[in-house]
Amino acid sequence: MSSDKIIDGRVLSSQIKNEIKEETRRLYEEKGIKPGLAFILAGENPASQVYVRNKGKACEEIGFHSITNVLPEKTEEGEILDLIKKYNEDAGIHGILVQLPLPKHISEDKIIEAIDYRKDVDGFHPHNVGNLLIGRKCFISCTPFGIIEMIKRHGIKTSGMNAVIIGRSNIVGKPMAALFLRKDINSTVTVCHSATKDIKEYTLNADILVAAMGKPYFVKPDMVKEGAVIIDVGINRIEDKSAPKGTRLVGDVDYDGCFDKASKITPVPGGVGLMTIAMLMRNTLDAALGRIF
Amino acid sequence: MSSDKIIDGRVLSSQIKNEIKEETRRLYEEKGIKPGLAFILAGENPASQVYVRNKGKACEEIGFHSITNVLPEKTEEGEILDLIKKYNEDAGIHGILVQLPLPKHISEDKIIEAIDYRKDVDGFHPHNVGNLLIGRKCFISCTPFGIIEMIKRHGIKTSGMNAVIIGRSNIVGKPMAALFLRKDINSTVTVCHSATKDIKEYTLNADILVAAMGKPYFVKPDMVKEGAVIIDVGINRIEDKSAPKGTRLVGDVDYDGCFDKASKITPVPGGVGLMTIAMLMRNTLDAALGRIF
Repeated sequence: MSSDKIIDGRVLSSQIKNEIKEETRRLYEEKGIKPGLAFILAGENPASQVYVRNKGKACEEIGFHSITNVLPEKTEEGEILDLIKKYNEDAGIHGILVQLPLPKHISEDKIIEAIDYRKDVDGFHPHNVGNLLIGRKCFISCTPFGIIEMIKRHGIKTSGMNAVIIGRSNIVGKPMAALFLRKDINSTVTVCHSATKDIKEYTLNADILVAAMGKPYFVKPDMVKEGAVIIDVGINRIEDKSAPKGTRLVGDVDYDGCFDKASKITPVPGGVGLMTIAMLMRNTLDAALGRIF
Repeated sequence: MSSDKIIDGRVLSSQIKNEIKEETRRLYEEKGIKPGLAFILAGENPASQVYVRNKGKACEEIGFHSITNVLPEKTEEGEILDLIKKYNEDAGIHGILVQLPLPKHISEDKIIEAIDYRKDVDGFHPHNVGNLLIGRKCFISCTPFGIIEMIKRHGIKTSGMNAVIIGRSNIVGKPMAALFLRKDINSTVTVCHSATKDIKEYTLNADILVAAMGKPYFVKPDMVKEGAVIIDVGINRIEDKSAPKGTRLVGDVDYDGCFDKASKITPVPGGVGLMTIAMLMRNTLDAALGRIF
């Protein structure tokens, strides 16, 4: 089902990574600087292990210097704080990424706040979130940043458009809303969530619809306006006896059902998810370039 | 035109100030602590002078300790930064307020970021704005905080309601949106602004309508849903030859026109504006009580 309707995360993310690779090469040639990214992973969450491995691989491909610290499940908060302190002070490290979730006895808030916000390439530190909302330079959380990049690179008009976001998570829904409000994007923004009554009333008026609530196939064709741009952030694993593993990944949008109505749509897999690592690399390179702070 | 429709800022703000006064008295009796607020005013903006004077008076009435620093227009940035540093380190000062706007040669961003966010009782520091958006404890910017207080004290239901905000300023529209999204308030939120097309389409569906764009009489009765709660943040001075001074203050809402349709409405003057100082006092007391950080 190839079509120019499809916003292909594979194509865009590899294009962006190539650009970053080229800029990284030049930065090294001209100034001898190699962007450095430190990963901290605590515990044995299998998904987290895969994420960190993939991010490490991306660093290698692009030409970043990276260090991965794997700590046991029972690591004490103080040990992670010490590591963060070390990297905060290390001029060769431009970004620090603590993979979430952390073991339950560790305060994620405390850990994130301990990262120097000028090295918070995930964009989760309150200082960056605040600057995002008030329209100043900051590290933008990677998933919403990737979505905006998809929208821009497909030449989708945003100014004056009605952007409706379903979901109010701290890593997608809320920073996404803040981004759409920025003057250079300039959309009217609505955030719907679990307490919203008659959600269809909002989604049916959306020029740009971002689905980020983590419910498989939640967005059905009767909820979508003809010609809408549909961005699917969901990654849900559902049972599928016909699939080799007995399960498969689906988004928050009924992709096949909504395809005809959409003017543009992101697939799952192969859509938004692939942009996240690319934007993490972008943030880290920008940190090394001193472009943000 | 007295009616139980009217959300009276005069009544509510004096009620809140009385509560704060009582808590302040107890805090002093029990722990010997007096909340301390430091004001910094640079330049000769007459409105700023009035604001700072009124805030100082409120401190006196309530029983706070306050210091007002009045600096000349040509003050250097470094002098203000030095003052802030002094108050950041002063254990007797719980809140620091730099009155905006500052003279043009001074970077407001830099000044606000220099304030220890744990003393930023205005709620303008990116750290506080970020925490507001991600739903953590923080100082909430006083005008949106006052609006939520008005809504709560009038028993207005917010969960699942459709809140529409007109205006995306950093001190009202954006923090207001962040507040409405919090789980304890739980409204669906739309932010409209200068680029919004057909604004009526949004406002006509608002259960709670917050007008904060600074245009006199912008919200007309044909833009309002029957039974809506209307919150008017505008303070506009317009010509009025019949008024003693030749001008008078009006809001962003056509109050007389919208009155019949509204289930609740805030007047201007005598509405939201009066809440701001009360909430500043609340933030300062909370700082002294160690309730936020």
